[in-house]
Amino acid sequence: MDLSSDFLSDAKALLGDKGWRMDAESLEDVATPWRGTFQGHTPFLALPASTQQVSDLVKLCRKHQVAITPQGGNTGLVDAGTPHGEITVSMRRMQAVRAVDAFNNSLVIEAGAALVQAQDAADEANRLFPLSLGSEGTATIGGLISTNAGGVAVLRYGMMRDLILGLEVVLPDGEIWDGLSGLRKNNTGYDLKHLFAGAEGTLGIITAATLKLFPKVARATAWISCESAAAVVELLALTRDHAGDTVTSFEIIPANAIDMVRSEMPDVRDPNPSDLPWRVLCEVSMASETHARETMELALQSAFEGGLAADAVIAENLTQAKSFWTIRESIPLSKRAYGTAINHDVAVPVSQIPAFLDAAQNAILDISPSAEIIAFGHVGDGNLHYSACEPKGAAAPVLSNHASEITQLVHDQAMAFGGSISAEHGVGRLKRDELEEIRPLAATNTMKAIKAALDPDGIMNPNRVVRTD
Amino acid sequence: MDLSSDFLSDAKALLGDKGWRMDAESLEDVATPWRGTFQGHTPFLALPASTQQVSDLVKLCRKHQVAITPQGGNTGLVDAGTPHGEITVSMRRMQAVRAVDAFNNSLVIEAGAALVQAQDAADEANRLFPLSLGSEGTATIGGLISTNAGGVAVLRYGMMRDLILGLEVVLPDGEIWDGLSGLRKNNTGYDLKHLFAGAEGTLGIITAATLKLFPKVARATAWISCESAAAVVELLALTRDHAGDTVTSFEIIPANAIDMVRSEMPDVRDPNPSDLPWRVLCEVSMASETHARETMELALQSAFEGGLAADAVIAENLTQAKSFWTIRESIPLSKRAYGTAINHDVAVPVSQIPAFLDAAQNAILDISPSAEIIAFGHVGDGNLHYSACEPKGAAAPVLSNHASEITQLVHDQAMAFGGSISAEHGVGRLKRDELEEIRPLAATNTMKAIKAALDPDGIMNPNRVVRTD
Repeated sequence: MDLSSDFLSDAKALLGDKGWRMDAESLEDVATPWRGTFQGHTPFLALPASTQQVSDLVKLCRKHQVAITPQGGNTGLVDAGTPHGEITVSMRRMQAVRAVDAFNNSLVIEAGAALVQAQDAADEANRLFPLSLGSEGTATIGGLISTNAGGVAVLRYGMMRDLILGLEVVLPDGEIWDGLSGLRKNNTGYDLKHLFAGAEGTLGIITAATLKLFPKVARATAWISCESAAAVVELLALTRDHAGDTVTSFEIIPANAIDMVRSEMPDVRDPNPSDLPWRVLCEVSMASETHARETMELALQSAFEGGLAADAVIAENLTQAKSFWTIRESIPLSKRAYGTAINHDVAVPVSQIPAFLDAAQNAILDISPSAEIIAFGHVGDGNLHYSACEPKGAAAPVLSNHASEITQLVHDQAMAFGGSISAEHGVGRLKRDELEEIRPLAATNTMKAIKAALDPDGIMNPNRVVRTD
Repeated sequence: MDLSSDFLSDAKALLGDKGWRMDAESLEDVATPWRGTFQGHTPFLALPASTQQVSDLVKLCRKHQVAITPQGGNTGLVDAGTPHGEITVSMRRMQAVRAVDAFNNSLVIEAGAALVQAQDAADEANRLFPLSLGSEGTATIGGLISTNAGGVAVLRYGMMRDLILGLEVVLPDGEIWDGLSGLRKNNTGYDLKHLFAGAEGTLGIITAATLKLFPKVARATAWISCESAAAVVELLALTRDHAGDTVTSFEIIPANAIDMVRSEMPDVRDPNPSDLPWRVLCEVSMASETHARETMELALQSAFEGGLAADAVIAENLTQAKSFWTIRESIPLSKRAYGTAINHDVAVPVSQIPAFLDAAQNAILDISPSAEIIAFGHVGDGNLHYSACEPKGAAAPVLSNHASEITQLVHDQAMAFGGSISAEHGVGRLKRDELEEIRPLAATNTMKAIKAALDPDGIMNPNRVVRTD
């Protein structure tokens, strides 16, 4: 995009000296996401310091028909926040915690703050902000809301959209919507916050949010060996019979993922080695530590009696619990180091997980008998991070020639079981066209009508989520 | 609205003999809501038996530019589901439970089913559907979603929108959107279910929903006497310190509301009479009944020590717990029997409840020193059902002359404390114009743009939520 000198001088003036960059390094930096998966380009980086500056900038962009890509921590995985010719509006200078209200269990924070800042501010008020995921030191509140992030505590606390009470958004016409309500009940029209959440910056720029806080809880963390995915699904139901909805995390980890992590991080060890193919990392959290531990013990006892679990350890302390989590959190990076991996972010109804795993594996092995399948993730949400990996030390690459075929096949199987091909990572440009084929036409038409109505000039992160050109 | 004979003959043909009514009694019945608050009129009642019939009927309406008011249990309080010249599409013949998936904790049910049917179907699968409110035998799933109903368990489980995984909706162009996903994670575009939830039938007709189910829990129910509203708010925080988010209900009841209930239902008695002005009905629910009771006892003990509660009883059994709830649930009807009451459905941040109560009461007593204030409701959600009542036996009516003045005053106070004038009942026609004045212009404009984009002919429950004529 060629920016006019009028636009540039006005933009620089309204943003101030610290509010913009045009040097090659800065522009390259924001055009390259965290994992280096996509390469974009951008002619101008705006770094607004206030909601008013965002508003003024968007009005200027509208006047000059300049397209915008809003950006948070640049950790997205679906090519939504990487500019492809648009100017980049990075929210990183807007990080203030505006207010904390412990009695109302709410927190107002700006979009550019990292997730860990919200967690810390909640902690200082003796409260919990429960969203938790690998990139929490970098991913921003605005980005997490715009992509409706998930993570490891969704089973109990929900996705990011479930954790917001209100939003402040600069709309595509530059007007500011102050919807920073701290109310838990507010039936006063269409729920706009849920429209902006998950819209990946295509309907406006989120500048601040009111987050829900929760009481702090103590955790009982168990590492459990299981014989089959079917047993894992039954174990979840049994654990919930004992613990109700205090089951906070219920992560499935295949034994081969632990081997993979160990090959990159030799100090890591399986807390309870076993020949069985599956581990479960299960966390129950309650106000009373004693109750949490008692409940976990009772649940495991009936799991042993019912043959659903073969063996288990409960962490003795927080350090040991953390060591369990380190294994789980190291899988994505170890996988990258391991070699070619064709990755997917699918969901199926929880009850369908075992059948999906069987069907997808059989289909992949038909194409590539030596492929290694690494399927880990959030059983409680039906969300699996499903990868087909090149066997380490293979004489010749066998998988990479079949990448798109394998993806098609995994997605077909997910859809066949009533699932989704984008559980928590989102749409962006990466899955936009595939989703348009999969999604009911009535849904796509409705989304396009909303996009056209709210952003008639098509300047707000165009061509993400739905194609607009 | 004059319906053409072409429209009528086509509509009758597609709906079949059981699928329509034009007799005066049926038309009068659907034009008069539950509490008789509004009187509408309708030329035609459609009773479709399937989603396909709804779709065909909407297409026919669109062709003839006939406006539609969808209707569920006709229990709404804001004049959203009462026809005012539109044809009425009642969902009452679509009541099927289409599927129950206990491992996935989900249930697919048609829009015309009463809430109690969903609760029963969940119960049969050894699960809980947690929404609970006074009209649950009559209010329908479609209506509860369209109004984003609240009730007495919002503190723990959220509003109706938080309890749906997917929807099936007939759009204003008659197309069917099958979004009956049973997935907990599904980031595949704008979240349409949250747009239809709370839209009061203005963006389409909900025909079925996939509901979230939860593990069953045991309850510990306490009836607590408190000295002040400030103590009640602190008691909530303290109870959550002990019980975490297993505090399911936390209802405030003023002593004068109990007197009012007793004057209509003499058999009712205060479970623990006290001279103090406030009672709290608090419920903690956990998988383990022992844990729930232990937790409640510990919380009450520290409440006594901290001077936040003066006295309390914990229900010994379900029958006693139910007797506590009977008092709470009888307040709305007793209030009607009592005489003139000017009712409001407001919310403020929980931390602001004491200040709001003082300010609103002072303002009302300035106008009408003998008015009786009855403020009860969901402290945990900041949601108060706030009424100014004519003192019983007053020589001459003093309040009714000031009705609109008092409403203005209560709403002004709610807004001054960062609140809402429609916490859980919705907008409808009743609060549409007032909310247009209160709501940020950017929000109203966005809502109108969405309405115009999705229902360009303006046939879907027109002039509810936002004015469209």
